[in-house]
Amino acid sequence: MNSFGSALTNFRPTPASIPPSNAHLTLHISSDLPVNFHPLNPLEFLLRAAQIYPDRLALLHPDVQFPVFYTYSVWAQRVQNFAYGLLRAGIQPGDRIAVLAPNSPMIADALQGVIGARAIVTTINTRLTKDEIDYILTHSGARLIFVDHDYKHLVSGATAPIIVSDDTGRPDDPYEGFLTAGRVYSQEKGWAGLEIDSDENKPLSLNYTSGTTGRPKGTYLAAVANAFETQMSKESTYLWWAATLLLDIIIWIVLFHRILPMFHAAGWTFPWSITFSFATQAVSDHLANSRLLFDLEAFLELRSNTLLWSSYSADRNHEPSKRKAAAAPNQDDHCWCCTHRSAPCSAEVQGFQPVHVYGLTETYGPFTRNYPQSSWFGLSPSERAKLSARQGHAFATSAPLRVVRPTTSPGDKLVDVPRDGKTVGEIVARGNIVMQGYFQDPEATARAFEGGYFHSGDLAVWHPDGSVQIQDRSKDIIISGGENASSLAIEQELASHPDVLEVSVVGREHPKWGERPMAFVILHAGSAERWAGNHKGFSSALKAHARKRLPGFATPEWIAIVEELPKTSTGKIMKTVLRKRAAASAKL
Amino acid sequence: MNSFGSALTNFRPTPASIPPSNAHLTLHISSDLPVNFHPLNPLEFLLRAAQIYPDRLALLHPDVQFPVFYTYSVWAQRVQNFAYGLLRAGIQPGDRIAVLAPNSPMIADALQGVIGARAIVTTINTRLTKDEIDYILTHSGARLIFVDHDYKHLVSGATAPIIVSDDTGRPDDPYEGFLTAGRVYSQEKGWAGLEIDSDENKPLSLNYTSGTTGRPKGTYLAAVANAFETQMSKESTYLWWAATLLLDIIIWIVLFHRILPMFHAAGWTFPWSITFSFATQAVSDHLANSRLLFDLEAFLELRSNTLLWSSYSADRNHEPSKRKAAAAPNQDDHCWCCTHRSAPCSAEVQGFQPVHVYGLTETYGPFTRNYPQSSWFGLSPSERAKLSARQGHAFATSAPLRVVRPTTSPGDKLVDVPRDGKTVGEIVARGNIVMQGYFQDPEATARAFEGGYFHSGDLAVWHPDGSVQIQDRSKDIIISGGENASSLAIEQELASHPDVLEVSVVGREHPKWGERPMAFVILHAGSAERWAGNHKGFSSALKAHARKRLPGFATPEWIAIVEELPKTSTGKIMKTVLRKRAAASAKL
Repeated sequence: MNSFGSALTNFRPTPASIPPSNAHLTLHISSDLPVNFHPLNPLEFLLRAAQIYPDRLALLHPDVQFPVFYTYSVWAQRVQNFAYGLLRAGIQPGDRIAVLAPNSPMIADALQGVIGARAIVTTINTRLTKDEIDYILTHSGARLIFVDHDYKHLVSGATAPIIVSDDTGRPDDPYEGFLTAGRVYSQEKGWAGLEIDSDENKPLSLNYTSGTTGRPKGTYLAAVANAFETQMSKESTYLWWAATLLLDIIIWIVLFHRILPMFHAAGWTFPWSITFSFATQAVSDHLANSRLLFDLEAFLELRSNTLLWSSYSADRNHEPSKRKAAAAPNQDDHCWCCTHRSAPCSAEVQGFQPVHVYGLTETYGPFTRNYPQSSWFGLSPSERAKLSARQGHAFATSAPLRVVRPTTSPGDKLVDVPRDGKTVGEIVARGNIVMQGYFQDPEATARAFEGGYFHSGDLAVWHPDGSVQIQDRSKDIIISGGENASSLAIEQELASHPDVLEVSVVGREHPKWGERPMAFVILHAGSAERWAGNHKGFSSALKAHARKRLPGFATPEWIAIVEELPKTSTGKIMKTVLRKRAAASAKL
Repeated sequence: MNSFGSALTNFRPTPASIPPSNAHLTLHISSDLPVNFHPLNPLEFLLRAAQIYPDRLALLHPDVQFPVFYTYSVWAQRVQNFAYGLLRAGIQPGDRIAVLAPNSPMIADALQGVIGARAIVTTINTRLTKDEIDYILTHSGARLIFVDHDYKHLVSGATAPIIVSDDTGRPDDPYEGFLTAGRVYSQEKGWAGLEIDSDENKPLSLNYTSGTTGRPKGTYLAAVANAFETQMSKESTYLWWAATLLLDIIIWIVLFHRILPMFHAAGWTFPWSITFSFATQAVSDHLANSRLLFDLEAFLELRSNTLLWSSYSADRNHEPSKRKAAAAPNQDDHCWCCTHRSAPCSAEVQGFQPVHVYGLTETYGPFTRNYPQSSWFGLSPSERAKLSARQGHAFATSAPLRVVRPTTSPGDKLVDVPRDGKTVGEIVARGNIVMQGYFQDPEATARAFEGGYFHSGDLAVWHPDGSVQIQDRSKDIIISGGENASSLAIEQELASHPDVLEVSVVGREHPKWGERPMAFVILHAGSAERWAGNHKGFSSALKAHARKRLPGFATPEWIAIVEELPKTSTGKIMKTVLRKRAAASAKL
């Protein structure tokens, strides 16, 4: 181990981070509860991990000026200090606590520690504008704000008190001051001085990816499912960034996927899957230029057989709607995601096994999974890829899902579409892994829960094997000559053209057909050179390509070559912007 | 594949076992339930498995005249037929259904199908006497009895209707007739015609290992924990017998452990861990002489990377108490158990990894696990073995446990013993993985739940690392000169003498000390020859051995060499018999 290694191994946690030798790692539980009931609460996973594997590496933050690492024993003490820090600040059960930070120890602490104070954690996307963040702070009624030093300017003027982290882990860091004060305030009452919430259905998190509130029970069950489905174990290291990936995987991810940050929908409950599994988590916010890449691999290989990370696809093309999230929840960013399992010892191709999952913030992140079948091994790679792209079946601890005919008015009975792989319907879900509701918006909640199921807003076909495959967002359907054309399906076919690097399709008004598809295309560098000055030629070539693969009503009528596509802070294409452009060009 | 293979592959399930091509694998759910709640119910695991991996081998029964196997798709249909068969017989929610059978498809079906009819499954130990079985049938109020053809004589005269299985899987088998009639009765309404119980806390099973009732929620969470802790996956085959084990492991098991049968406390929820994981289960009741040993290995290797099975130790020395189970529940048989993981590809010694767990029928089987630590690798094998023998910590989805000072009167507050690895207290537990109660015995339930915790009756020390280690059953403590001597600890030390094959220790009255330990010893064959006629010599040698290792009050005062030890039908040493013998010899 060289410079990185020595910077890391020279690190010492603050004195307040060191637990007493006789630490009792059990939350107080109300004696009014029945003997055979304990409220499902995901904070208990951390306490178990600290009890059973106290010296195991829990949290590693290597890629900063002052690298830090914490064992489970030390981390649990810091989380306890965090909870007491909240109590000291007068936080009551149910109060909202905002966190604006990139992947870092503070946000990891908050996702656990806020539960210890029975408050509600709200993690905020650091890529939002100040206006958007102001809205979230006001709408959530945050009582306390934790902010990373790099993002202080985004919370200036906020009315709630602000705790700044310099992300150093050193005693002179104001965030460390907060933790130390919490420890002092605790008077060494330890975990026994903090109570586990008796109600497993109260809100635990508030996520402005959709304005949803999640419950301890749902978080618990979703976290267990994520751990089981990814076969996470104490031999795993979960990466909140992608520094150690092989180059080709990095390219694949940079082009098509984004690594899941911890602030995104509370990290899809992975923060608790990790503690459930006694795994190690490594946090960073520097995807591309981790100067510690090779050292880190050496460091981690000592501890781990398996590297895991989550990423989500940016090709679902939804608008940003942070500000209107709570008001118009179904307008929100949904996600495709893949959890990868890098298993150096396995015989898998390139040593990594993708686990394709699908979900929404309203479902705590993933709630379906694509389950590979042994019969697929006999298929061609492209056939296999098609099957692997399906969103699959409800996953472990989820209730079964359905695909239903889109309802037209409230009170309509939900009717399943046939399982024919053709008829498009809406994915609806119910059960423990459905959010509690939209925060302070009973009407939006009631709308989303119409007919006794949560409406995902995702249009899909239901295959005979019971798996679902998303076709589009309901509003991304293009109604062309009375036919429903899926912009996603069109994009998929256009993207198979060798010159196309990236493509997005929206509807544009048409005098005869009502709407017709318009495609916005980015060309590969070489192709752009070749087609330069010959837009018409490329347009014809692409239309010909499309006609072979799509019905007439779905073939794009117009094609625009562009340098880039308008994207949100989380990398999703802003179709509203494209629709406006399409409308403007219709008027020319 | 030879004769066995062809017998197996020529097997065809009955026509009623074949599901319709459009099978819809979802139970009906009440529309009164909140959108974000679904009752935790372990039957859903089977339906998911049949949906996602319909063609995967679910159930294999090779070791009989007519070997059978069922895929998940077919097995789920048979389970559905079972549920409809119960409805056809007039079974109502909450009715008890008795099953008296060795490991076989019928008992596997019953553990799933009874849930489909919202009834309560009672599996009965086939090794009990007719009197004991009569008692269980009467006490449980069984409305219907399923019996394997080999055990018909044990239920003769029962008042409830009896369904006999000839264990052939062929259409002329009366049990298959029951299933076929169920299918007809369903009128092809399928799973949608069966309702998932809205209450996840109603009884699901009634287990006469302790007279306890388990709930769907507890069964669900215990099954998930067992699956996670054993890393069960769809690459696993779970063995309900041990035919494929290596010879040395067989010997180890035959001497010290028994393979868990499905009727024992509903198989510790493993029947549902298996369906949760999409694993295969192989059932047999012929441990020693499986004529299909080698064929089967070949058969299974095609399908599986990992073999799993559970076994329980017979060295806990408890009396059989089936008849008085419900009345005196704490007198019951508790278990040590090990789940083994045979991983041919791994570098583990002998290719198998024991997972040491501990539990009781009252806790749905296992609820603690010994978690191996990396620091143990540096220790000597004997030191490591000592640490591995601890019962460990509460496992995944369990609530934390405690070790408390034995209480003397009802209403006493529970006080933790110090975590010093020395002070003996009682293991108590609470939470979702504690039984609902003792069937029709609120007084015994209240006693067991005294102070807000379930009292295991197991005496243990609490180590500084939070792990527990059982010392003895409370009634097996020998009070010698006012000191508490653990018969288990004495047995462990005596067993380390090279001449001792097996040993059991009980208290015997002593004029001066109140009690003193008396040991009953079986010698190794060679040692027996050597010490023949020299009982006194051996006795002195063993006492000298003991004195070096035990305090004076724990050194056995009397030693009897015996040919065998009295054991129960489940292989536990009957200490009551030994105590009587000790008392009788005191009078000589």
